[in-house]
Formats: sequence, C-alpha cells, structure tokens
Amino acid sequence: MKHPITLLIFFCALTLQAQTVAHNHQVTFRYDAPDATEVVLELNGMRIPMLPGNATWNVTTDSLPSDLYAYRYIVDGKPVTEAQSLRKMRDIDNWFDYFIIPDGIGSYFEANNVPHGKTEQTWYTTADGNNRRMSVYLPPSYSNNNQPFPVLYLLHGSGGDELAWLELGRAAQILDNLIAEGKAEEMIVVMPSGNMWQEASPAYYPKPVKLSHRDVRLSGTFEMQFPEIIHYIDTHYNTVPDKHHRAVAGLSMGGYHAMHISHHYPHTFDYVGLFSPAYCPTKIYHDNILFPVSDSLPEVYRQVENELQTQFQAGLKLYWIAIGTDDFLYEENRLFRQILDRNHYPYEYSESAGGHTWQNWRHYLLTFAQRLFR
Amino acid sequence: MKHPITLLIFFCALTLQAQTVAHNHQVTFRYDAPDATEVVLELNGMRIPMLPGNATWNVTTDSLPSDLYAYRYIVDGKPVTEAQSLRKMRDIDNWFDYFIIPDGIGSYFEANNVPHGKTEQTWYTTADGNNRRMSVYLPPSYSNNNQPFPVLYLLHGSGGDELAWLELGRAAQILDNLIAEGKAEEMIVVMPSGNMWQEASPAYYPKPVKLSHRDVRLSGTFEMQFPEIIHYIDTHYNTVPDKHHRAVAGLSMGGYHAMHISHHYPHTFDYVGLFSPAYCPTKIYHDNILFPVSDSLPEVYRQVENELQTQFQAGLKLYWIAIGTDDFLYEENRLFRQILDRNHYPYEYSESAGGHTWQNWRHYLLTFAQRLFR
Repeated sequence: MKHPITLLIFFCALTLQAQTVAHNHQVTFRYDAPDATEVVLELNGMRIPMLPGNATWNVTTDSLPSDLYAYRYIVDGKPVTEAQSLRKMRDIDNWFDYFIIPDGIGSYFEANNVPHGKTEQTWYTTADGNNRRMSVYLPPSYSNNNQPFPVLYLLHGSGGDELAWLELGRAAQILDNLIAEGKAEEMIVVMPSGNMWQEASPAYYPKPVKLSHRDVRLSGTFEMQFPEIIHYIDTHYNTVPDKHHRAVAGLSMGGYHAMHISHHYPHTFDYVGLFSPAYCPTKIYHDNILFPVSDSLPEVYRQVENELQTQFQAGLKLYWIAIGTDDFLYEENRLFRQILDRNHYPYEYSESAGGHTWQNWRHYLLTFAQRLFR
Repeated sequence: MKHPITLLIFFCALTLQAQTVAHNHQVTFRYDAPDATEVVLELNGMRIPMLPGNATWNVTTDSLPSDLYAYRYIVDGKPVTEAQSLRKMRDIDNWFDYFIIPDGIGSYFEANNVPHGKTEQTWYTTADGNNRRMSVYLPPSYSNNNQPFPVLYLLHGSGGDELAWLELGRAAQILDNLIAEGKAEEMIVVMPSGNMWQEASPAYYPKPVKLSHRDVRLSGTFEMQFPEIIHYIDTHYNTVPDKHHRAVAGLSMGGYHAMHISHHYPHTFDYVGLFSPAYCPTKIYHDNILFPVSDSLPEVYRQVENELQTQFQAGLKLYWIAIGTDDFLYEENRLFRQILDRNHYPYEYSESAGGHTWQNWRHYLLTFAQRLFR
C-alpha cells in the first residue's frame, strides 16, 4: 500500500452537474430530493415546475436560444444550488449555477481561445480619505504596447459591487471576444464600487454598513466625486485623457449614476450608456416631474435639465438608452425620453424583451461596446 | 403608488447566514430540513452531527480558536451550502460557506483597514504557444513607487488553479496584513496555473481536458518551463531579477513543483517553501527510494539528489518544510528529510496538527512569508 489516495487527489475527475444539454439545446435538469413537496427550477428568472420521478425531480426545457443561463432550484420554497459544480455566480447574497449555450450570442459570454485582457482589483483613495476598491479590465495589447487607450467607465446597480460586471456581467469575456473579431476597439474598462457605504464588495470586505449613510444614492456623493476616479485612472494607466476617448455606462442605479455624472460634468464623456436606468433623484416623482428644481437637493441634482442642455449643446457621439418592456422602470424611462424628445436631444433607444435582468445587461453591453471610440 | 420596489431593490438588507457567533466564539449552526434523516455539519473538515429540533437541525460548537472556518451541511449524504450568503469558497467543484473568528490568527485572513495591494489575472504565452492565465499580487507601494520588488512564486495543489491561493488561501489578505504590521517585506506574489492540461481555471475557461495530457505532473513540463514564467514576470513587472530576491513555495503538488523546480534551476531561488509536499516522481516509491536515477525519467527528475547537492552547495537562505501529523504524505516527507539529514543540508521543519488542508496551508503561508527577503 503506497498511497493510492495521492493519485485520487492528483487526478480526480470532476463531478458533472445535474444538468445536461442535448444536441438541440434542450436542457434536462435533475434534482434529487425524494422528500420534497415541490421543486421549481428558476432559470434566468423564469420559474419552471419540476416533476417528481423516482426520488429525482426532472424537467426538460424547450430548445434554448444561445445565451448564458443562470439557474437554481427552489425546493419547498428554499433556494438551493448544485451540490457540486465549477461555475456559480453571486448576485448580492444569492447564488446561481450557470451554463452557456454557445454557437450564437452566448459565445460572447464564454472565455474562448482568443487574446485575453488582464483584469485587476485595485484600490484608490478618495480626497476625503476613504480607500475604495475597483476592478479594471486592460485589453489584450495593453501590456505589449505603449499606445494609450480609451476608457469605458462601467457602473453596477445598487445590489452590485466592483465585481458585478466581471462576474455576472461577463465584461472581460465580452470585450475579449468583440476585440478578437474586430467588432470593438481595444479599451480599458473601469468598474468602481458605486455604493458609497461600502469601500469594497461586502463579500471581500465585511466592514459594517454605516446605516446613517445608506441613503447615499441620493446624496450625490458618488457622482460628485467621480472626477477622482477619472484622475486615478488617467494617472495610473495609459489612457487618452480626453472626452473623445471616454465613455460612461451603467445598469439600474449605475445608469442613474452615468446619467447624472455625465450631465454634471458635461464636457467629460462622448459616449453615455444607460441600461435599465433609474433617473429621479427624489425617489418618487410627482406630477410626472422627474427632475424638480430645488435648492434643497444635493448640488448634482439641482439643475438637471439645464445641465442636460449644456451636455447636449457641447455635443457627444452617442447617448444610448436600453430597457426591457417588462422593467419596473419602464414608465420612468418613458418620462425621461419625453424630456429628450421635447428638446430634440439626439439619442438612440433600444427596447428588449424581459425586465430588470443581467441577461438584458449582458446583451446591452455587447451592443454598446461595439459603438464606442470608432 | 410610485415604485416602492425601487427602494426594495436599492436598499434591500442582506439575509443573515444560518450561523451565529456568540461572544465567546461558540458558533451555533441551524439548518432547516424537516424531512431529513441525518444532517452533519462539516466544519474545516471535522464532521459534527446536528440534532433535529422543530423542523430545524442545530448544533453549537465549543469555543472556536481564532481562524477561518469553511463549512457545509451534509444532508442525507448530500453536501449543501447556505441558501443565501455573501461568502462562499470553491475547492475544485466543492463549495463551502466561510466565516472568520477574529482577534487572533484569523484576523490575518480578513480584509482589514490597512493599505491594500492589487490583484490581477493576466495571461502569458509559453514558448510552445499556449496561452496560460496567472494571478499576481502587487504590494501596496507598487503603484506609487519606482523601486523594484522581490517575488514569491506561490504554487497550488493538483486540485487547484491560478485562483486557489487568492480565494482559498487568502494570500492577498495575509500579505496586506503582514506588510501593514511590518512583519513581512513588500513583495510581488505570482500564482500561475500548475496543471498543464488547463490553460486557466476550469471555472473560467472550460476548455476540454486533453486526457492524453492529464499525466503531465510526471512529465516535468511545468517545472522545465518555469523559467518562462520568471522571464514574463521580470519583463512585465518591476522586480529585482536575482536569486536573493526570489522565493518559490507551494502546497501538495505545488510543493512537489517548488522542490523540483528549485533543484533543477539551483541558482534561481534563495527561499524554498514546501507545504505538505509530495516528492516522488514515479508516483510510488520502492525500497524507500524517493528519487530513482533513471534515464527513462523526464530530465528534471533524472538526477534529483545530484541537483539537490548543487542547490545546497550554491547556498540558500531558507529551505522550509511544513506538514501536518495526519497528512497522508507524512511518511514520504520523513523519507525526504532523511536525505536532507544524511547530507547535512540545512533546512527548517515545522510540524502542525491536522492533515492535508487549506487551514494548514494558510497558516504555513502566514509563517513562511514573514521569513522572506529580510
């Protein structure tokens, strides 16, 4: 007996997930829960009842379009993920297994055999002394090339953090794949933390939330301090530090941030992307007024429509808005487009199916990134 | 009624894990499984039976020493993790929730309010044309400082990948905290992928395993090609490119790699760390001979004892071995120390409780990192 366990540990096979994809992209899910009363499959937000078999609950989907699919099981009301799997995603404190159906849009979300960019988590210090973490994507040529690159600032939603666009949003894979096909320019992508009450993802840095600061979305602090992030990037990375080579985009609260940052600093970005964005800085809008003029509001929200005018008069290359028809922010977006239309501000608008989902936001980034810096 | 769901999404509270830590560091675990026959808590490898209560299984531990604790539940034989939680760790395809008991050694594994280094995932190309991913830790002063830094090459085990030392091993937190206390020098830490049949973590890059190449641990390819990694680091980062400022360490298969790389390139490293290492390049040793001399072996394994002699004659600052008394590689390690003792090669040996575990490897890195470059 000479340590066969060594071989087991060195060369163990990986257990397969309880999910198999057939040739026609029908997917069969199996969940072993002999005593459960009800098992539901949650698949990219759809709820699909599973059928009890011999101790195993089963369901086979219709043929699924190429995409990334996140799923979990709801067993008697309680969410569970696969016992063993390589690929899970965290959405705040919820976890999902995921798989990709390739040969279509899904292939853009997979790491393929193409030149890869570098991803980083780095820390910067704000003028008021907070250390804050951000993620940065550097395109494949960055290390081998002294040429400067344009920058996309890509902002997460209120439930996200500086890891969200990399982990849930597949930003590195999307950029790698678009660049490899010549469909996007090489660019730096900066993903800061937009929750001012957290210095970093709570998964990384469990500093207690300062409850009195939780409402900072409406304090304007993140928007006002945004030039500090730009300054950090322009002094630590090889960038083209001008408006023509700068984009800002974000989802949900990040769209809200991108919109308010870009009008408050109206000569800073040539490209603005609003993915399922919120807009109203007073939480709730009255009489269909999204942007009340009030000195009691934080500075960044006081003159929104005037600042929008300055922004559009200064000119920009692309103001791009996308939202799903089922999004709870759909009406708020309709009101915002009314303001743009009334003033004849040029923008592009893209409407998709579905709602406030990462499935949509991955698609929006895939489209928006192809429009930048060219 | 104007979108209360916005507020919910923007400001939702995080669900607590089903685990509470009392003031005296006793931890109570609760798992809701009314129909289960048996629920066992697996806590840092210990198996602790849970007791059924009103629909909820419970157990309260003794007071736990300060450390990082990874856990999951085994429900009727099937491993499950918390339904909702911020902090999970992946060990190959097994997942664990984790928490940290601070105020002692555990605090070194937490992200604290200290200057933070940067972490990166980057790709390099081997001379034979493979793109391979690695993780790199850059110490807090790296970006603000033109001074070059020493480098620790830190290697994972066969079940790991280029993310293992960052995620399971807490390497960034350990270095940040030691550096902040002045207990370790600022250093770059390079964590390549040691499984030659994978270009990157299978969680990131699900390229099919080439089965015919699975046995590459014994092909010596990783060890032979290691100078390519050193060359990539010395040409892309601000390093001191000499033996005095270079260390190599690894766990399990990574210890095996560190040992064989350092004797085959005997003028390359002043510091060698072997954490629960394997040694024997023929899988199984006969007649207590760890290192047979045979022309049929790959080059790096042909003259191990001669090369060890060259390495120790050239001199080095620290040759450090650590293993747990319950480790299945304990006997193999005893045989290796016999070779070192017989030849009067200077080394240090540290024996801990426990076995082949990340709990030990985090502790070993914490000790070893304090000995480097000073």
